[in-house]
Amino acid sequence: MTIKDVSFERDRPDVCGDAHPKALLKAIQEDGDYLLKLSNQHVVSADQFSQLGMLQLFRLAAKYEANPRRFSTSLQGKILISAFYEPSTRTRLSFESAWHRLGGDIMSITDRSTTGIAKGECLSDVAEMFNNYGDCVVLRDNNETSLEEMIDSLRIPIINAGNGSDEHPTQALADMYALFKWRPDLVTDEADKAPIKIGIIGVPDKMRTVRSFIKCLVKFPKAIDEIVIIHDEESSTQLFGEEQKEQIEQAGIRIRTTRDLEQVLPELDVVYINAISWEGDTFSTYGSEFHLTTQSPLKDSAIILHPLARGQELSTDLDSTPHNWYFSQARGAVFLRMALLTCMVQRAERVIDVV
Amino acid sequence: MTIKDVSFERDRPDVCGDAHPKALLKAIQEDGDYLLKLSNQHVVSADQFSQLGMLQLFRLAAKYEANPRRFSTSLQGKILISAFYEPSTRTRLSFESAWHRLGGDIMSITDRSTTGIAKGECLSDVAEMFNNYGDCVVLRDNNETSLEEMIDSLRIPIINAGNGSDEHPTQALADMYALFKWRPDLVTDEADKAPIKIGIIGVPDKMRTVRSFIKCLVKFPKAIDEIVIIHDEESSTQLFGEEQKEQIEQAGIRIRTTRDLEQVLPELDVVYINAISWEGDTFSTYGSEFHLTTQSPLKDSAIILHPLARGQELSTDLDSTPHNWYFSQARGAVFLRMALLTCMVQRAERVIDVV
Amino acid sequence: MTIKDVSFERDRPDVCGDAHPKALLKAIQEDGDYLLKLSNQHVVSADQFSQLGMLQLFRLAAKYEANPRRFSTSLQGKILISAFYEPSTRTRLSFESAWHRLGGDIMSITDRSTTGIAKGECLSDVAEMFNNYGDCVVLRDNNETSLEEMIDSLRIPIINAGNGSDEHPTQALADMYALFKWRPDLVTDEADKAPIKIGIIGVPDKMRTVRSFIKCLVKFPKAIDEIVIIHDEESSTQLFGEEQKEQIEQAGIRIRTTRDLEQVLPELDVVYINAISWEGDTFSTYGSEFHLTTQSPLKDSAIILHPLARGQELSTDLDSTPHNWYFSQARGAVFLRMALLTCMVQRAERVIDVV
Repeated sequence: MTIKDVSFERDRPDVCGDAHPKALLKAIQEDGDYLLKLSNQHVVSADQFSQLGMLQLFRLAAKYEANPRRFSTSLQGKILISAFYEPSTRTRLSFESAWHRLGGDIMSITDRSTTGIAKGECLSDVAEMFNNYGDCVVLRDNNETSLEEMIDSLRIPIINAGNGSDEHPTQALADMYALFKWRPDLVTDEADKAPIKIGIIGVPDKMRTVRSFIKCLVKFPKAIDEIVIIHDEESSTQLFGEEQKEQIEQAGIRIRTTRDLEQVLPELDVVYINAISWEGDTFSTYGSEFHLTTQSPLKDSAIILHPLARGQELSTDLDSTPHNWYFSQARGAVFLRMALLTCMVQRAERVIDVV
Repeated sequence: MTIKDVSFERDRPDVCGDAHPKALLKAIQEDGDYLLKLSNQHVVSADQFSQLGMLQLFRLAAKYEANPRRFSTSLQGKILISAFYEPSTRTRLSFESAWHRLGGDIMSITDRSTTGIAKGECLSDVAEMFNNYGDCVVLRDNNETSLEEMIDSLRIPIINAGNGSDEHPTQALADMYALFKWRPDLVTDEADKAPIKIGIIGVPDKMRTVRSFIKCLVKFPKAIDEIVIIHDEESSTQLFGEEQKEQIEQAGIRIRTTRDLEQVLPELDVVYINAISWEGDTFSTYGSEFHLTTQSPLKDSAIILHPLARGQELSTDLDSTPHNWYFSQARGAVFLRMALLTCMVQRAERVIDVV
Repeated sequence: MTIKDVSFERDRPDVCGDAHPKALLKAIQEDGDYLLKLSNQHVVSADQFSQLGMLQLFRLAAKYEANPRRFSTSLQGKILISAFYEPSTRTRLSFESAWHRLGGDIMSITDRSTTGIAKGECLSDVAEMFNNYGDCVVLRDNNETSLEEMIDSLRIPIINAGNGSDEHPTQALADMYALFKWRPDLVTDEADKAPIKIGIIGVPDKMRTVRSFIKCLVKFPKAIDEIVIIHDEESSTQLFGEEQKEQIEQAGIRIRTTRDLEQVLPELDVVYINAISWEGDTFSTYGSEFHLTTQSPLKDSAIILHPLARGQELSTDLDSTPHNWYFSQARGAVFLRMALLTCMVQRAERVIDVV
């Protein structure tokens, strides 16, 4: 081992500080009713969240992030069933960390072949089992319809943590939370004074993260001036899925598509990049010609978001620049999930003040 | 995602209510001595439980089920080693949920290939390791003799959670608990006023669940009028293992075998069905010609038990009928295991009143 | 199942008692400063521990072992990331048990294929993720350099739990702790009155346990009279790695090598044996001609240490003899890790008296 210095620094003066979450917390007035309503809802699609509902979630997430040690027992006595039938560490650990931070216990299933499903058990029976064994289910499955097969039998809430190429709603909520931490003014009445241009490098029809993200963005038309989809040639023929483009236009947000990243970059306030996509049983990489590096013609004030894990498309030399908000986005995902989980298992009343 | 309604109901007016466990709780007088004795015993076989010992376990299980939120710290500071070397979710999660519900921590081993056994470690050394690392072991292994190889080295209790085709004693206890929740009068002096006829669809010599279940049934001869084994032709030649039939007869319970399910169904108060069996390294399905559906000539008052997971043999159209006690059975398994585990790790005195 | 007696004894009058840890506790004067310093250090190599630092760790381990129920909440609210990318139960469960005994929560990764690394994620990104999700990382990886690739990005401490054939520092600390429990006088000023001869059956250049153990031994020259390396012919040509032999000599400890186990055994106070070694992607067995049994010409007072898991090289007939200190060594490893983990996550001040 050639490591000479084994010491490390716990703190780093970066976007991980608490100034941003505190500012966001201040910018949103508490209204607990929206959170209490989450106690009898599954989380299936980003569609189901209203603007006001999202804002209350972001507020609670910011409250957690600004006081990371204050709420450590909100989920005491609750059991999470963490069922990841598709490879994932990042999302699984993010949920599990969120649950543990609040004092809950966890049962993990990371391999379908170790389960009764291997013996031919149907998913509605698995759901019935989950009812008896836990208080909440987080499910990731490469099969888009598994969630549907379970949902009617469930008497405890389930969260869609990525179902094939369909949706990944909590990732999108975490993305929005990062956006508003960066610019808390975007949640206020003043949002339309400086609305943002967002470039999305990706294929809305193929990528669950992009699909869910757009569904959230359209709920904030005052904050969003324009969405620019940056795509490769191959994806040109089927860039949007059914109604995706219409949804954006109906929200009153301008939409543009381009294949020239370099040309559009200088205009963008936010660049959302994500080059990995789940398709059927394998991963695909889209837009491999697109790369962001410190040489890219980014606006000085522009930020980059990436749901991670990243590949070649996002250079690590950007990590130490102010463009790097993807690490803040990853960090915030834990607090966002803490907020959501608290509400879903009927513990919101322990952490909110105003109902 | 085509799911339109994401709301759900937490409660359902079914056998999952607390009326049945409360009635059973009332029917059994507490005698803590039987529970305290469990603190220095492994759980290997259903043979080892006496009628009075079982009743006290069922009473504690009913106490837990009737007050699911009252006892949440009985196992605080205790560590469970959950070692499942054979595919299982249902049993594993049932044990882990039971342990977590009482505030304990868990270390899971779900894959033999990630263990030191892969390096050629002998099981008595594994047992010695477990002594140092945990307070209780739950073991499932397709190798019948693994338990025997570990037991002499253990100074903490171990539970047989299914050893090949041999036994699955805690499943049998959960089955009995479901039976007595359904008819609490069967544990009283009045049991012989209306003893029950139980049909078992399966092969006592091949199925660990059936083997362990029969060992429990014979301890309650006043409650059981007759056991009818319903089997396919293939199993006719070796239906019973050594002494299985004799044990039933010696208990004074009538025993009958038949291959005609339809003919015998109208007589039965309880139908126990289980078409999956573990044999050697693979699963086998027995009696694939037997099916229970809403068209089956069941008595109106008859109940169905099934250790689950189920296959084709038990139609889901029965789920919403009063015959469905298999869901109650599955739910009760958690509370039964909570009762057993509490006693085994010397925490019975925290939950019993009368010694 | 042929097991007739299901009862067991929890206690056994052996080296697992608390007399030895209590004696060691008494022999070392507390100096908390050495423990507080561990709060901003990774644990990479046995090199990084000074004699005084080790002694304080052994003292805290002995305090835990002498009072196993007294400190059950020191790690409450802390989350361990247990990442074992190489097969292991013993080390993983030892760490997880240590963490749970102190009230902390755990997230486990036991299979690389279920992780984002399978999607091509780089290790520094994994490290950044760990920063957000946990409070401490324990890493085992057959790739020697994985630790190096993560360390610069970490803002939480990481522990090397075995990196290929390089090092396994916490195993070595546990080995030393066993040694000093056996002979607490060896940590005092009187150590040089009866310094010990240690025989090591193994190849210092190939075995991570031996490499790390020697790095610890050289910090205690007063206690160690001589180290005898017992090796097979095959290993003769490359017995020592760079500077390994020099390090021992510079410490003023005599060093000898031999291929004749039987001849040297009668001289030895301690025999350290370990026949399994990790090399590249597979395990190798060295010195298969060496066996310890009750027939071996051991000194009456000699003790045997073995990091376990064992193979043929160490006969189980020695288990019930006073030579068996390998079980005490395994048991102590949990308490040693409890001590180390407590300090690394800034909770030392909860358990020490004197700073």
